[in-house]
Parts: sequence; structure tokens; C-alpha cells
Amino acid sequence: MKNTFGNSVALTVFGESHGNMIGAVIDGLPAGITVNEDFISHQLDLRRPYGKISTPRHEADKFEIVSGVFNNKTTGTPICIVIPNENTKSKDYNYGIARPGHADFTAFSKYNGFEDYRGGGHFSGRITAGLVASGAIAISALEKKGIKIGTHIKKCANVEDADFGDYIKDTNELNNKLFAVLDDKKGEEMIKKIEAAASQNDSVGGVLETVVTGLPAGIGEPWFDSVESMLSHALFSVPAVKGVEFGAGFNCVDMLGSEMNDAFFYDGDTVGTITNNNGGINGGITNGMPVIFRCAIKPTPTISKEQNTINFVTNENIKTEIHGRHDPCIVHRARVVVDSVTALVLCDLLSQKFGTDWLGEK
Amino acid sequence: MKNTFGNSVALTVFGESHGNMIGAVIDGLPAGITVNEDFISHQLDLRRPYGKISTPRHEADKFEIVSGVFNNKTTGTPICIVIPNENTKSKDYNYGIARPGHADFTAFSKYNGFEDYRGGGHFSGRITAGLVASGAIAISALEKKGIKIGTHIKKCANVEDADFGDYIKDTNELNNKLFAVLDDKKGEEMIKKIEAAASQNDSVGGVLETVVTGLPAGIGEPWFDSVESMLSHALFSVPAVKGVEFGAGFNCVDMLGSEMNDAFFYDGDTVGTITNNNGGINGGITNGMPVIFRCAIKPTPTISKEQNTINFVTNENIKTEIHGRHDPCIVHRARVVVDSVTALVLCDLLSQKFGTDWLGEK
Amino acid sequence: MKNTFGNSVALTVFGESHGNMIGAVIDGLPAGITVNEDFISHQLDLRRPYGKISTPRHEADKFEIVSGVFNNKTTGTPICIVIPNENTKSKDYNYGIARPGHADFTAFSKYNGFEDYRGGGHFSGRITAGLVASGAIAISALEKKGIKIGTHIKKCANVEDADFGDYIKDTNELNNKLFAVLDDKKGEEMIKKIEAAASQNDSVGGVLETVVTGLPAGIGEPWFDSVESMLSHALFSVPAVKGVEFGAGFNCVDMLGSEMNDAFFYDGDTVGTITNNNGGINGGITNGMPVIFRCAIKPTPTISKEQNTINFVTNENIKTEIHGRHDPCIVHRARVVVDSVTALVLCDLLSQKFGTDWLGEK
Amino acid sequence: MKNTFGNSVALTVFGESHGNMIGAVIDGLPAGITVNEDFISHQLDLRRPYGKISTPRHEADKFEIVSGVFNNKTTGTPICIVIPNENTKSKDYNYGIARPGHADFTAFSKYNGFEDYRGGGHFSGRITAGLVASGAIAISALEKKGIKIGTHIKKCANVEDADFGDYIKDTNELNNKLFAVLDDKKGEEMIKKIEAAASQNDSVGGVLETVVTGLPAGIGEPWFDSVESMLSHALFSVPAVKGVEFGAGFNCVDMLGSEMNDAFFYDGDTVGTITNNNGGINGGITNGMPVIFRCAIKPTPTISKEQNTINFVTNENIKTEIHGRHDPCIVHRARVVVDSVTALVLCDLLSQKFGTDWLGEK
Repeated sequence: MKNTFGNSVALTVFGESHGNMIGAVIDGLPAGITVNEDFISHQLDLRRPYGKISTPRHEADKFEIVSGVFNNKTTGTPICIVIPNENTKSKDYNYGIARPGHADFTAFSKYNGFEDYRGGGHFSGRITAGLVASGAIAISALEKKGIKIGTHIKKCANVEDADFGDYIKDTNELNNKLFAVLDDKKGEEMIKKIEAAASQNDSVGGVLETVVTGLPAGIGEPWFDSVESMLSHALFSVPAVKGVEFGAGFNCVDMLGSEMNDAFFYDGDTVGTITNNNGGINGGITNGMPVIFRCAIKPTPTISKEQNTINFVTNENIKTEIHGRHDPCIVHRARVVVDSVTALVLCDLLSQKFGTDWLGEK
Repeated sequence: MKNTFGNSVALTVFGESHGNMIGAVIDGLPAGITVNEDFISHQLDLRRPYGKISTPRHEADKFEIVSGVFNNKTTGTPICIVIPNENTKSKDYNYGIARPGHADFTAFSKYNGFEDYRGGGHFSGRITAGLVASGAIAISALEKKGIKIGTHIKKCANVEDADFGDYIKDTNELNNKLFAVLDDKKGEEMIKKIEAAASQNDSVGGVLETVVTGLPAGIGEPWFDSVESMLSHALFSVPAVKGVEFGAGFNCVDMLGSEMNDAFFYDGDTVGTITNNNGGINGGITNGMPVIFRCAIKPTPTISKEQNTINFVTNENIKTEIHGRHDPCIVHRARVVVDSVTALVLCDLLSQKFGTDWLGEK
Repeated sequence: MKNTFGNSVALTVFGESHGNMIGAVIDGLPAGITVNEDFISHQLDLRRPYGKISTPRHEADKFEIVSGVFNNKTTGTPICIVIPNENTKSKDYNYGIARPGHADFTAFSKYNGFEDYRGGGHFSGRITAGLVASGAIAISALEKKGIKIGTHIKKCANVEDADFGDYIKDTNELNNKLFAVLDDKKGEEMIKKIEAAASQNDSVGGVLETVVTGLPAGIGEPWFDSVESMLSHALFSVPAVKGVEFGAGFNCVDMLGSEMNDAFFYDGDTVGTITNNNGGINGGITNGMPVIFRCAIKPTPTISKEQNTINFVTNENIKTEIHGRHDPCIVHRARVVVDSVTALVLCDLLSQKFGTDWLGEK
Repeated sequence: MKNTFGNSVALTVFGESHGNMIGAVIDGLPAGITVNEDFISHQLDLRRPYGKISTPRHEADKFEIVSGVFNNKTTGTPICIVIPNENTKSKDYNYGIARPGHADFTAFSKYNGFEDYRGGGHFSGRITAGLVASGAIAISALEKKGIKIGTHIKKCANVEDADFGDYIKDTNELNNKLFAVLDDKKGEEMIKKIEAAASQNDSVGGVLETVVTGLPAGIGEPWFDSVESMLSHALFSVPAVKGVEFGAGFNCVDMLGSEMNDAFFYDGDTVGTITNNNGGINGGITNGMPVIFRCAIKPTPTISKEQNTINFVTNENIKTEIHGRHDPCIVHRARVVVDSVTALVLCDLLSQKFGTDWLGEK
């Protein structure tokens, strides 16, 4: 369904990079969630550019919640959040040049030339600000139920971060970092490598690894709304994601069944598994263990290096250099977007299982 | 939406491993597709066990199309295909034992003990027979429009197949192989390794790589029904899939932007890209190049080795050995399932872009 | 979404009048509903022809539940019910004749001549047998929660039945009648008038009035899934329904606001309204009072009188007389269909409000 | 799906009567529709209060299109239209009083007291301004294809307007009237009766009759997305609609089959029917004749007469008089809302049949 995703909790996005406003409508969240505007701002800040390694488009991301919140609580009706666009330098963009790795040509193919092409239009990463603002409210709801989401930069510019290990239990520190690594030294290495790529007018990508704790067993569907299906559907909508894997993911293909299978145990109180190669999901349904997945984020396609391409209006083969603002890496910024869509999908799955009032606020 | 997937073309599955029938309803396919029952049988045969490396449950998969086809053509109304279950040895299964890597425990958590647990019930790979029969009709429709799907076993039991290369242009030979590798010697190696694992009461996994040619540019949506989103949603519903990646996929994270970006060119007739690291998709929308993706298939969880687990009825920690029929590898059988769900998703996307009559049969 | 309706509980129908089987898939019903095959048969019998006033196509409606039920309880996975077609005299039908009031011409316009035209094909009232079988399971679930549905023939062939009055509290007697009137004398009058129309090779219509008791307040949505919206969506899919009204319905336009408004009261235990002109629904949401609505059922379009029409293949203006079996009235048969779709919609709304386990079976 | 309706073209509404903004997102309209802001304003004016017979809340309805339109053309991406609320006198409303005929009590039942109760909140008729602004763009698209929608006040305060007759062919004059009757003398009578009811602190209702011309044959689905189902689903979301009927509607129950059936004819060029008792729809699908339907609009529930009701917070039986602004009749204002949702549903059905580019703009 085009720009809407979700069953019981549905998110609709709208806006273009250089239009008047971007935003989102979140429908179906339970009534009674406390909406903390400071937390929304905090999340939006995590999505915003960071230091030398990001684009100089420094917008304040002033959002306005125009509906669905009353006396600082969600009302249960659609929450529309709008974020006005400022600082929109349209002059940087020319129509007809198919920037390699971008959607200029595919947008033209789809929308017959009527697309708002400025700054990537509706395909712009800027639209993710609406996801993040919406996701912040979903995250608040989940935390009330003891469900926590944490994502770190597992790999960036060929540098690997530490393993999650015990951080699975406390994601707060991680969630407040602008450059979310477990091992800050590795983070510094990554940043140096990003800066090096930038100085070559080039860009780098990375892997984000996410863990969700506190989910009850029994969430999700065998066909077709498995937890993996619903999450991957949302995650592959995040610009630059080219791969999604759960638990052992692609590494599972080098394992034997006896290594991959997660043995169940009962500790007198709870059922768990000794390993978690299935990422907390069996048959599409949560088993009560942490849900673990990874997203491959491609290197930012916007680079200032000269590239071969076409002008699709004139059908000429041309060379292009993309000037103006851009990020040599968006992995660290994509992190909070991943957390946000994860939270929205989980609220949807919880609402389907437990009903509209799953939060239990009265 | 639980057991239904798709917007304009929607697939609904039903059935349990040891119930009366399994089957599927496909709704929204254009009227006028020639339905070739031999081709459906052929596709079902590809899904069926193969030689020593597969389960001895040899059912003929006799399907019956009970609606939606008239005079060998689709009518445009829902096509229901039922496949009776035969040879269902229920005695092999006991309730309460959480087979590691299986959905026994999660099904119990979700359905409160009312689930049909025999042979995995609704979670069984057997349900994919309905996908394959449905997908066969979708494949026939796509071929009429010059759209072809081919999948090979890129990796299995640590053995790698040859690269797709020129096979992208001709997938017919590949599609007729029971063990779909490009390099048959590599296939023999794989089979030996599978047999070796089987002899150890163990199992192996693998990677399936799919290429789709002939898709026009302009199919898909930026948010949230990107081609990647729609395909991954369907693919992660296929049992044992733990990862999905498009184009360069997870490898893209080690590339620079200048390496990853696919330069466009115009050859006087068509727009193409020199490389295809984005897998034929920019911004969620097809660019006219082949769509390429890979699925990680985990080693079959059903192994006869002794494993630790629980009885979730009695909450006891126990040891289990799974006897009865099972496959030491399902990668080669999953291949046609992947092709089938791919075809159904593509028909859906084409129908949304071009309308119900996209096939143009009059 | 074409042949599927519902959000959390979804019904998919398939089949053609003279195909192999018709049937339905119901997905999303809670696990643990006791499935009473006798009750399903009973409901199917109510839909079947009755005495002289109905078509001589007397099929036994032997249904088979092929999935989703285990040990006589729903499993929570899709329930597929198939009903084989028997006694299908295809010779009665010729292609190209647009029977007035029927879908022959519109089916041709939509499906380009590929439609199964025999006996109305997928448009046939026979498809409602699948709705009735599915609805029977939904009705059983609702009754477990004290929710009852009753429908009487409020008007038929210009004869009016008694008012609902106290029958609202006990619908059992009504639900077991083959010709569901409150005042049997009125029923006899109706039947005589139906027979009189039949003797003139003509047909009559009527109004069905439905009451649902026991629904809690707070079910439904303001936009767009109001209780009225969801019910009317399903009801207008029932063949021959040309009008749907709630509470005072079209009569409300002759009332003053002070007459139409239903005054609330609190009796020390429950909130109620003194009148029920709004049919138990305010702002799209149940208020705890009985939900009341009426459906206009047009006279059966199949009549043996000579009629003017076209042959849409040859584009000739012709005269036609429809021989073969048909009903001079279907109002009494449509009754159980209305009850069935009502039950399915209510299960959907309850599941959205209270979650998958709204029935509370453990 | 709660506040979103439509498959290929979907409308999402948000906002509360006294919140910051109300608005709507329309997704899936074709690229290339010329957006005429004057026409949107004109349509919003038709929804606004009119003379003595309407509420004194005279807001300018200044709307802003914040996305999806570029260079005065739709881009094919979501169009978000926001309308700021002004002149919001919150003091008029007290929490806990269940205004008879209103959603105060049901909102409380559904949202557990977290609802924004001011002025009806999300249930307010004010939300329809978003429908009207969205619908205006849909109407422009339809007119490009020769599809016209016209609605008149068929009955109001017991006064009947003239029959549609030849007005079916030209709806322009009608569409520009603030009080849309065919016979202005009848309109004056209606207005006098409305004023008389107002002077008694009471209100009246009416019937709106709509005709759509220019639709091709073959639009809609047999189950469950019949044209009747889709339109009624949307229409019953419009506040105060308590009945919807197509063609002869409830009158069909007093007709014989031979009277009700519409005889087809072929005039050498086109297929038509002599009568149109089925309202242009057979089997849920358009037959090329005008689509005709009527909506019953109940008398405005907001009246200043003293009424019995409850305070649902204190559970007291009370008397209430509703002061502040309100309309003694909303039938004339509802007219443009009906046209708007009709246009959106038709765009959806056309898009499903003919694809995203059904408008053919390049």
C-alpha cells in the first residue's frame, strides 16, 4: 500500500526534500502514551548530521504534533507530525541528470517527469525525519512495557565494533551516543576512515546491528506477517539498506544444523535458548529471546567524484560531479531510523496480538 | 494481514502438514493466462524430495484447481488450488517437545495449545507446495511479457557455485534442474557434502541467488512497498530463510561509494548500468536492469542427532532425537519456492502499475 | 482487496456456480472455538431452497473443513471450507445473452470474455454458501461471549412482518425458522404472494431487519472503519442487496433532532438509551445498545418472463426467456447470509479491539 | 484500517476539532493532475456554513498543500493538505456530558478517557474539510476523463426536490449552488422549514441523491469490493449518514422482478439500459450507465433544546442544553463531502482497473 505500512498500527509518510513540509501520520497507537517532546527532539538530533563526517545541511528539525495528542498523552486517534523544511537550496539540482545510485532515473520512469526532483524529492533521506519522530512515540510506548531496542554500528568503513554481549541488557548508554559504537576506540577509527574517504570525494557504508529485548513469546505470524517479514518490509524502505538478516543470518549457511539449532531450556521460571542463532524468532514468531538483526547500509551514493551517467531527458551520455552538501557516511544517522521503524512494527504486532489497549493505560 | 499477502494480486495460504488438504487462493491475476497443468506439476516436482539427500516422504502432490480457471485460461476470479495430504504418519510426533530450531514452542505460545502440532502443522514446509502451484501460474503470466526468473544454489555446504554471468540471459536450462547449480561439478561436491552431513545425522544450509530479467523500469514504490520490501516480505515467509540481500548486498559495506554506484549509460536504444551493485533497484523502484537478490537458507532444523530441549507442557528439560523422515538439506527444494513467491510479488507490482489487464489478453 | 475482506479477521471467497468447488478461507479467528459441524449444516440448510417458493436445485451442500480445525477446535490458522458443486446443469446457459439485472454483461466488460459464465459463475448466489459455512463458526464464537444475531423478514412482497419488540432478547426461535418471520400469519401471506408472482413467471423482493445484542460499547472506528462502514461493505457484497440503513435509517430524515436523538440513561448498573434511532452506533462506534440495521433485497432478477436485452457478443438486440431453475424470491434465503457476514465483521472488530485472543479460550 | 481507506488510492485523515490542524493525506493519485487551488477553495466554501441556517463558526478554511504537488501538478507521491484550526472556543464544552446522538460516550468507551473531547474532537464534522480538499483534486482528475459527479438535496425537512431527469447530463450549475436543489422554489421551502426548526431549538435531516456519469463499464469487484461496498464504506464514514441505497434502493422491495430488471439495449454504438433501477451497477460492477445512490442524513444531533442524558464520569442522570454554535441542518453542507468521498473511491477503482497512470498524463 504505497506510503502506508502496518496493519493495526499504520504509518503514512509524506513530503519532499524541498517541499513545504515533510511529515508522518501514525495511526493505531494506544491511547494514553505520554508524549515527551524532548525525547522526540533528542531522537531527531541523533538523525541529524554529526560533525565533519556529515552534510552541512544543519536544520533544526522543528517538528509540530498537529493532532492525536491531548494533555501530553496520545488520544488513540491519528498522530500527525509535520516538520517544515528550511534551508532548501534548490539551485544545487538540475533535472535530467541520473545521479548514479540515486532514484532520479527510476522516479522519472515511474512518475513520467512530474516528480519533484529537487534534492531527491520524496526519495530523500529527509523523509526519515518523519519516521524518527513517529518512532520516538512508539519507543516510549514499548519502554512502558519493558521492551527495549538498541542498535550499534557493527561495521563501518571496514572497521568492526565490539560484540553486543552484555550490552544487550542495557541499551540506554548506546542509544544516547551520536556515533553509536560499543567500543569508542573503534568508533574513532571508523570516523578517521570516513574522513579519509570524504577527502577523496568518496563515501563508505556499514552494518547496523539491532537487538530488541523484552518481547513476549508468541508475537508474529507464520505466513506472511512473520516478524522477519514485517521488519524487513519496513527496513528495506529505509534508504540505502541493501540487506537484512536475522540471528546468524548469512553466516548460518556455513553452519551445521546441530550448530545452528538453539537448544531450549527452562530455568524454573522462564523458557530460553542457550544460543540465539535464530534471532529470537522461530517460524516467524517470537520465542521470548532477544530479537537480533543486521542491516547492510550502502555507501552514500552522493559523492563529488566525477562519474559517468546519462541525462535522461536528452538521452546523452554525460559526466557529472555532484556538488553541494552530502554525507560521506550515513550509517551512524541511519541507526535511529532503524530503531524507529522497528518500534513501529513491534507496536503493530503487539496491537494485533493484544488489541488496541495493549499498553493498558486507563 | 496474516495468511494473505499482496495488494492487487494477493495470495492466501491454508493447511497443515497432516490435515486433509493444503492449498492456496491466488486472487487478482489477469484473466486470460493459459494454465498449463503439466508445468504446475513440473514445478511441484522441483519442490519435492530428490534422491538420497531428501526426505523419504514421497507424495505425488496431486493438485486440483477448483476455481478461477475455465477452458484452460484464468478467469480473473480467485484461483483456489488444493493439494490433498497423503502418507501422513502422525505417529512420529509427540506434543510438548520443543524441537530446536522449529516452531513448536512459538506455536504453543501463540495458539495456546490449540495448534495442530502434527508435523509442524501450519508451519510445515509442506505449505510451500501451495505457493509453488500458485507461483507456476504467475510465472507463466510473466513469461508472456518476457519476464524471466532464475535461481541457482550459489552456495551449499560451504561449496560455491559458479557466478551467474551469461546465464542471466537464459534461465531455462537452470530452471529444469533438480539440483539447480550452474556448474554441475560443484553440484556434485555439494551433494557429497550433504550426504556426509546426513551420515552424521546432521544437516546443512546454503545461499540461493535469483535473477529476474525483462522487468520494465518504474515498478515499485519509494515508501513502503519498495521492490526490496515486497520481495523480502514474501521471502522471509519461506521457512528457513534468515537473510535477504539485493545486488551487492552485505558486500556493499566494504565498498566505496564510487565502487558501489552503478554508472548509467544509454546505448542508443535503452538505458542500462555498467555494473549492477544495486540489483536493478534504485530508491525501491526498478531501473530496467536485472533484479538480483540472495536468500540465506539455514540448515534444516530437523536432525536426528540428540539435542537438549524442553517439554513445554511439563516444563521439563529433556533430550530429544528426532526420528522419522527429514531432509539433510532443503536448499535445492527451496529454490522453486523462492521463484514462486518472486513471481507472485512481481505480478502484484505489475498489476498496480499497469492495472488488472497488464497481460493484455483479449 | 477484491475477494478478501476484513482486517484482523479476513474472509476470502472462491469458486464458480458450475466449477468444481466453491469455498472460503477464514483467517484470524481465535484459537479454541468449538466447531460444530451440525450447526454449520443447519445454517447451510437455512440458505438452501425452501418449498415451492425456491429453485429446484436441491444440493446437499456437503462441506469439508480442510484446514484450521483440529480436535473439533479452531487452531487459530486459516480455516478453509470447500463445498463441491453437484447437479450442475450447464446446458441451461448460453454465452452472450445479457440477462437483465444480472452480471453477465459487466463480467464480460471486466474479464474480457474469459469469465466462467455458466450459472453466473463467480457472481452466483451459490458463493454465499461459503459465507454461511464460515459465518457459522463466527456465530459460535460470538455466542460464547453472549453476542447474538437475529434477522427477520421485515417486509416481503408488500407484506410487513411484526416489529422486533421483545424478540430482540430471544433470537433462537427466529434463527431456526426456514422462513424467518416474527408473525407466522404474515409469513403465510408473504408466501402466497411469492407463489402468485411465481405463477406469473415473476419475482419479488423484501427487507431484512437484523438486530445484534450483547456487543460491548467502544467497538468500531470513527474514520473509516465505522461499524456502519464495515457492515455495509460486507452486506453490499451479498448479491441483490441494494440498500442498507441503520437504526431509524431513511426514516430519520422526517424526524426532528429532538426525536432522533437517543437520550442516555444510567440505571445504576449500565448505560443505555431510551430510544435506539441510531441503531446502537454513535460516531461509528457501538454504544452498548443493540445494533439494528435493514437490508433491501431486490426481486430475484432471474425470471422466466420474456425480456428485452442484448447479445453482447453479436451486439444484437434480442428477446430472452430464462428457463431452468430459479427462485421467485430469495429474501428468506438471504437471511442467513446476512447473519453470517455480520458475524464475520463483528469478529473482526472484536479482534481489533481486544486482540487475537478476545475469546479467552486457554 | 482505521483512518485510512482505499487500496490503490488511499485517503488518511487526521485532526481534532480544536487541535492545531486537521488534514488529510491522499496517496496513489496519478502524477500530472493539474491542481487548482481556487477550485479547492470553492469546494471548501460549499462545505462551510451558509446564511442563517448554519453555525456561526465562520472559518476561512485556509488550507496548505504541503507535499505531493510540484509546479501545480500532482507528482504521484502523497499529497498532504493541512488546514489550521482557528476560532476554537473551547469553553463551550464540558467533559463527561454524553450529548445525545453524539460520540462523546462512545469515544470515552473506546479511548478510555484520553480522547480530545473538545468540540467532538476527531469525530467532528470539521474533519470532513480534509475530505473535501482531497476530493477536489480527485474530482479534477475524473473530469479530465469525462466522469462527472452531481448531488442534490432530494429531500429536506419533509420537502422533496424535483427529480434528476436531464440534470444528469449537466451537473455544473448544480455543483456551484450553495444550497444544491434542482428546483429553487423547493429549496426556499426547505430553508424556511429549517429556520422554523431552528427557532424551536431543533434540527432537521434530509436525503442526498448523487449521480455519476461517464464511468466505463467493468469497474468494481464481485466480492468484496463491489462499487456499492466501496462507496458505502466511505459514505457511512461521513458523519450523520444513517442509510445508503443504490438505484431504486429500498423502493425495489415493492417492485416485481420484471419491473426492477433493467433491459439492455444496443444503439449501434453503446450498450445501455432502458431503466436504471440497479443504479448503473450489476454484480458490483459498473455497466456504463450512470451510478445513482442516495444517502440519508440524520437531523443534526446538536440542538439547544433541553435533553435527558448522563454524565459518564459521575454516572449521574442529568439534563443538558447545548449552547454555542451549531447547525439546524447539515444536509446542504454534507453534499460536497459526499461528492468528495465518491470521487476518491472512484479514483481508487479506476486505478485498480487501469493502473497508476489511468489518467494518461505524460
